[in-house]
Amino acid sequence: MDRETAHEIKCDRFIQCMRMIDEQLDETSKSVDMESVKKIIEYIVDSNRIFIMGAGRSGLVGKGFAMRLMHMGFDVYVIGETTTPAVKSDDLVIAISGSGETTSITNLGKVSKNEIGAKLIAVTSNPDSTLGKMADVKLTVGGRATSQEEDYLERHMRGDYKSMAPMGTMFELLSIIVLDAIIAELIAITGASEEDLRSRHATLE
Amino acid sequence: MDRETAHEIKCDRFIQCMRMIDEQLDETSKSVDMESVKKIIEYIVDSNRIFIMGAGRSGLVGKGFAMRLMHMGFDVYVIGETTTPAVKSDDLVIAISGSGETTSITNLGKVSKNEIGAKLIAVTSNPDSTLGKMADVKLTVGGRATSQEEDYLERHMRGDYKSMAPMGTMFELLSIIVLDAIIAELIAITGASEEDLRSRHATLE
Amino acid sequence: MDRETAHEIKCDRFIQCMRMIDEQLDETSKSVDMESVKKIIEYIVDSNRIFIMGAGRSGLVGKGFAMRLMHMGFDVYVIGETTTPAVKSDDLVIAISGSGETTSITNLGKVSKNEIGAKLIAVTSNPDSTLGKMADVKLTVGGRATSQEEDYLERHMRGDYKSMAPMGTMFELLSIIVLDAIIAELIAITGASEEDLRSRHATLE
Amino acid sequence: MDRETAHEIKCDRFIQCMRMIDEQLDETSKSVDMESVKKIIEYIVDSNRIFIMGAGRSGLVGKGFAMRLMHMGFDVYVIGETTTPAVKSDDLVIAISGSGETTSITNLGKVSKNEIGAKLIAVTSNPDSTLGKMADVKLTVGGRATSQEEDYLERHMRGDYKSMAPMGTMFELLSIIVLDAIIAELIAITGASEEDLRSRHATLE
Repeated sequence: MDRETAHEIKCDRFIQCMRMIDEQLDETSKSVDMESVKKIIEYIVDSNRIFIMGAGRSGLVGKGFAMRLMHMGFDVYVIGETTTPAVKSDDLVIAISGSGETTSITNLGKVSKNEIGAKLIAVTSNPDSTLGKMADVKLTVGGRATSQEEDYLERHMRGDYKSMAPMGTMFELLSIIVLDAIIAELIAITGASEEDLRSRHATLE
Repeated sequence: MDRETAHEIKCDRFIQCMRMIDEQLDETSKSVDMESVKKIIEYIVDSNRIFIMGAGRSGLVGKGFAMRLMHMGFDVYVIGETTTPAVKSDDLVIAISGSGETTSITNLGKVSKNEIGAKLIAVTSNPDSTLGKMADVKLTVGGRATSQEEDYLERHMRGDYKSMAPMGTMFELLSIIVLDAIIAELIAITGASEEDLRSRHATLE
Repeated sequence: MDRETAHEIKCDRFIQCMRMIDEQLDETSKSVDMESVKKIIEYIVDSNRIFIMGAGRSGLVGKGFAMRLMHMGFDVYVIGETTTPAVKSDDLVIAISGSGETTSITNLGKVSKNEIGAKLIAVTSNPDSTLGKMADVKLTVGGRATSQEEDYLERHMRGDYKSMAPMGTMFELLSIIVLDAIIAELIAITGASEEDLRSRHATLE
Repeated sequence: MDRETAHEIKCDRFIQCMRMIDEQLDETSKSVDMESVKKIIEYIVDSNRIFIMGAGRSGLVGKGFAMRLMHMGFDVYVIGETTTPAVKSDDLVIAISGSGETTSITNLGKVSKNEIGAKLIAVTSNPDSTLGKMADVKLTVGGRATSQEEDYLERHMRGDYKSMAPMGTMFELLSIIVLDAIIAELIAITGASEEDLRSRHATLE
């Protein structure tokens, strides 16, 4: 692309996209199932060790959540990292997958549940997926929102929703926010101070 | 923590936190500097190769952005990954750091700018930081919001803002959203379809 | 363990282990199938793009090889890293697995071969494994050596070979060395100088 | 490169390289300082938690060592991974760097030693380097070998040693082997069985 074209950038889509995410977040705040949130918090607090898994951008969402759990003092690991040990029957596995059908994640979910007997939480936009169905607790994020999104699109953007939040973007953004809100609740429950968290933050980075 | 206590979880903080993020996002939508956004889009479109860097959760924000740039067909690398090559003078480096003072990132920023002569973009909440000062373009995210946050805190939460969004959480969340909105604008500019993006999405994961 | 005990460390096993690896390497130098080595070099030189995969320590072996291929200027990616794109039919996939039965790797191998139609090289100690059988070329490393190892064990160590090189250690060590020797041959063939390699070595690390 | 040329691959360099590594390993077996090996084993056994760091291929060497320490039941972390906590004064840091001058590693080494007060082990081919000088214990690998290598080169290969083991290859290979021999000694000291190790091996990969 030449400079001249670049100078004409109007950022209409940037602004529309920010607005759409804002509306979606507003919707999610109202629609998220509080019973699932409570159960997840119970499972985390009661767990021996916590293992997080996800592929692609959902994997990054999981790592961000794992980092905060570590800061809080939980014994937490990311599947696939160097010193992650074997999952045992009294451990908790949290799987993040928008579609709930990512092969590697559903395979690992099956091993966790059926062979090892660990507890399994699914964070997904598709509760009726393979992953959703096998989970002990499922947190649906951005699921109901889908029709909302389509709706919003109809009203405001004439068919270009997908080009603004391609391939699961909305699920990923909303998941991060919901998981950070779960951290806020965990901080309140455990009485951890910012000081406590900071003391566990990596000093070498 | 015993089960009984866990059963009393009321999720007040969860709800407050969701609401606070929602308000912050609303504020950011209005306050983000569109000239910086435009320049970043120009730099990306004009770049030879793009290198992304960040530490901790800011590093995860960077990886999520890098993945989408790859899906769009850009030649993009994450600093520190296995097959990331040497940065050259005609490359673009994008550094993400809330404080703008993370030692490893400011060190690498100096090498990029001063020794290699590459272009440097800083995404930060602190434009007057070491990183912010040396960047060719800086995108301030959540900076103005800080006083806003304190304000919100005063009004609604009696001193517990920090326990709801500890250590840069708000910067990280807002950065991801702003960078995904930049992707939306890039998709509009380049005319990439969801199909184009999907064709580059990792098939083995 | 208390200091007193520690002071009695005699390093007998350290020395025996060094010697055993030395003998195994000597054996491997003689037994490695040169036809497979040649075919692998041909496949690499003829490839469009190269994708490397492996789990656990075999994954690290793969990453070390990928890094050197990148230094030589090949278009190479590690499966699972942030900006690794979709594998296409004209790409080459190199899978590393001692047992040849690691679930994630054999699954990805099947997708590469059967669904995508890419070429597949297996580096394994078990050529009759699921992975070995589906590969276009297989390089057997430490396979023949196994009986050798048992032999050596009988003669010198009375049953404790396994405690010196547990769970695939010997396969991993020999694989790294064989793959670095393949790099040496590739350097000779392409005429790359140390200078060429150094110019692509990560400047930001 | 066209197929015809490829068919003429003779693998002379492959064979020479295997032989050179074999000779180097033989030399290292004889020259490694056993007092340093003993001290490292003591430090590991006496440590609270162990943190491993290295850049590039030396980082991969470190990760392979960390994985085995985890299998043995040690509380071990890799610097830079998601859930790696803050280093404290009673922790042990093991740094791997051939040159002993990799900026990020020497910087982190300084923080570990001077600011945190943790113990520091350096695995390096350059004991007089910045990293080597600040370490509590240094293990020199492939250092003496350098002149040996040059020697071997003179005798057998007329000036092309570097093209067979570019940029620290020999240090990396010898480090992995020495560290795996340290694992063998640790297994003997602690009486860990293959069964013990296997029980901690990642079940989800």
